[in-house]
Amino acid sequence: MQINGQNYRSVWFEDGRLKIIDQNKIPFEFEIREYGNYMEVVQAIKDMTVRGAPAIGAAGAFGLALAALYAPEEKFRSYLRSARDELILSRPTAVDLSIGVNYVYESTLKFIPDIEHARQVAVLAANEFANKSEADCLQIGNIGAELIEPGSRILTHCNAGALATVDHGTALSVIRQAHKQGKNIFVYVDETRPRFQGALLTAFELEQEGIPHAIITDSAAGFYFQKKEIDIVITGADRICLNGDIANKIGTYEKAVMAWVHKVPFYIAAPRSTFDFSCAKGEDIPIEVRSEDEIKIIGDTYVANPSSTALNPAFDITPAHYISGIITPKGVFTASEAALKVQL
Amino acid sequence: MQINGQNYRSVWFEDGRLKIIDQNKIPFEFEIREYGNYMEVVQAIKDMTVRGAPAIGAAGAFGLALAALYAPEEKFRSYLRSARDELILSRPTAVDLSIGVNYVYESTLKFIPDIEHARQVAVLAANEFANKSEADCLQIGNIGAELIEPGSRILTHCNAGALATVDHGTALSVIRQAHKQGKNIFVYVDETRPRFQGALLTAFELEQEGIPHAIITDSAAGFYFQKKEIDIVITGADRICLNGDIANKIGTYEKAVMAWVHKVPFYIAAPRSTFDFSCAKGEDIPIEVRSEDEIKIIGDTYVANPSSTALNPAFDITPAHYISGIITPKGVFTASEAALKVQL
Repeated sequence: MQINGQNYRSVWFEDGRLKIIDQNKIPFEFEIREYGNYMEVVQAIKDMTVRGAPAIGAAGAFGLALAALYAPEEKFRSYLRSARDELILSRPTAVDLSIGVNYVYESTLKFIPDIEHARQVAVLAANEFANKSEADCLQIGNIGAELIEPGSRILTHCNAGALATVDHGTALSVIRQAHKQGKNIFVYVDETRPRFQGALLTAFELEQEGIPHAIITDSAAGFYFQKKEIDIVITGADRICLNGDIANKIGTYEKAVMAWVHKVPFYIAAPRSTFDFSCAKGEDIPIEVRSEDEIKIIGDTYVANPSSTALNPAFDITPAHYISGIITPKGVFTASEAALKVQL
Repeated sequence: MQINGQNYRSVWFEDGRLKIIDQNKIPFEFEIREYGNYMEVVQAIKDMTVRGAPAIGAAGAFGLALAALYAPEEKFRSYLRSARDELILSRPTAVDLSIGVNYVYESTLKFIPDIEHARQVAVLAANEFANKSEADCLQIGNIGAELIEPGSRILTHCNAGALATVDHGTALSVIRQAHKQGKNIFVYVDETRPRFQGALLTAFELEQEGIPHAIITDSAAGFYFQKKEIDIVITGADRICLNGDIANKIGTYEKAVMAWVHKVPFYIAAPRSTFDFSCAKGEDIPIEVRSEDEIKIIGDTYVANPSSTALNPAFDITPAHYISGIITPKGVFTASEAALKVQL
């Protein structure tokens, strides 16, 4: 991704250290944090310095590489096992995280008792995982961009951007590629209450790439649907079930229904790691309910009657029949067949 | 309405001055502002010290009474005409405003050249307008409460409360009466971005009256629709056209579509003054576009990428066919027949 005219990934390994763009500071400050041990990476995942399932997956993979690199030789195996467990538990719902961590863990174990070799392999495996993740996102962009007609006005929700992945993004990878192809697109960015990831992160990424866009409040999308000023909707997903139901940031379901009523195509962009093959249907997905303070307080300002209760479900379920297609690195599939097709 | 156990109207005339509950301070401070001339009332409407179409209508009526009361005798007529024009222009989407202002204007003009008599009539006419407005809202509540089944979970958007009217509210009058009748209701309150009138004002009014409720982000409503936890939607309106299309706070249209898709009844509660008999259909209603800073900055906190543009349409149009009925002081009518029926 472009930031201040330079190319960056959201997470990368350099000189034996993990570097992460601090997403809690974007768009106000651009700060790169450095990590020399896995415990710091656990903390960075917990405090959302790094967020977005694929980005967390790569951070976890590099976190385990750090553990392997600096583990005491005499207790290499047990140190690595603790690191694996702590990293995976730092964000229990992110399926990418356990995939990334376990990939590096298994790769490294094979080379014990040659510890020096194992250390090298850990870093190689983490880099391989991150590179594959990045390539998948670029592929999503190239495949998805074919769906974008010239002059399209695109609605997106939350941040499915380069910051949320190793690079390029999922929904934003499609948008980036369509823009690079000169398709003259315009993006409506849902601000995405309560945490404003659309207004803060997606708008920042689009501005950095010079992609024309405007932030709107979440339920202003209906106004633009009605005026026929939205041609296509693309979002990411947090989880995709076998039947094609998806979980994504709260508010996604309303966008899908509005798109359906207005006969506007609604696409999900996601890598293979977002598919949960243990999940039959949307109802099976547990919905995280977060603190009411995220709704009631912004900065130091109360934006709600302080003594009223607020309810803050963080995700909602969009049933497969509202989804025009799922854009994956392997192609665009109908929601109901996507889980099968990405496995082939 | 009850505030701290006392009964209040949102606007009233006392000792030659207009008093208004400052809605920009609710729920954090309860402050009553006083106005001695119409220019201050224009400003109070513009800065939303008073908001909500019927409350603005009454404020406008009292504003013109202030103009009549203190107009220089030698240019009474031209002063009154300027006051009328400035008051009406202070909020373009609110039709009640021009009705209230013009009612006092026409009533007053009849008594020229007896200026002293005209001044008295202006105050009487404004009070008459406000009293009628209050009685209409109470009637809306009594009629609308019949639509509420015991145990109903009601969704409302923005503030169609006592604060938005002279008293009782429109949508909230229905909710108040249903609650007073012991119907064991629960209210989901859309926070209503960008200005949070739901989270701030509606939640405050409900809390003051002891009505069980919870604040949700605007696009979390879909989550509760999907779970079948919303039984009925009631909102107010800023304007109702002859064909039954209505304009209301941005986001209302999405709630109407969501209700329609989920087969949940969607009602508008509104007095006669909300009907614009000069407006054939929703497309004819001009939509006020407000400052992008309402979206981007909250208190002192930027909640958006500062250099991105935000678009801030303040209202949207809900077509008649999404509306189950319009609750008026004269009865509940289908949207398409309501304009005719309220005139009879």
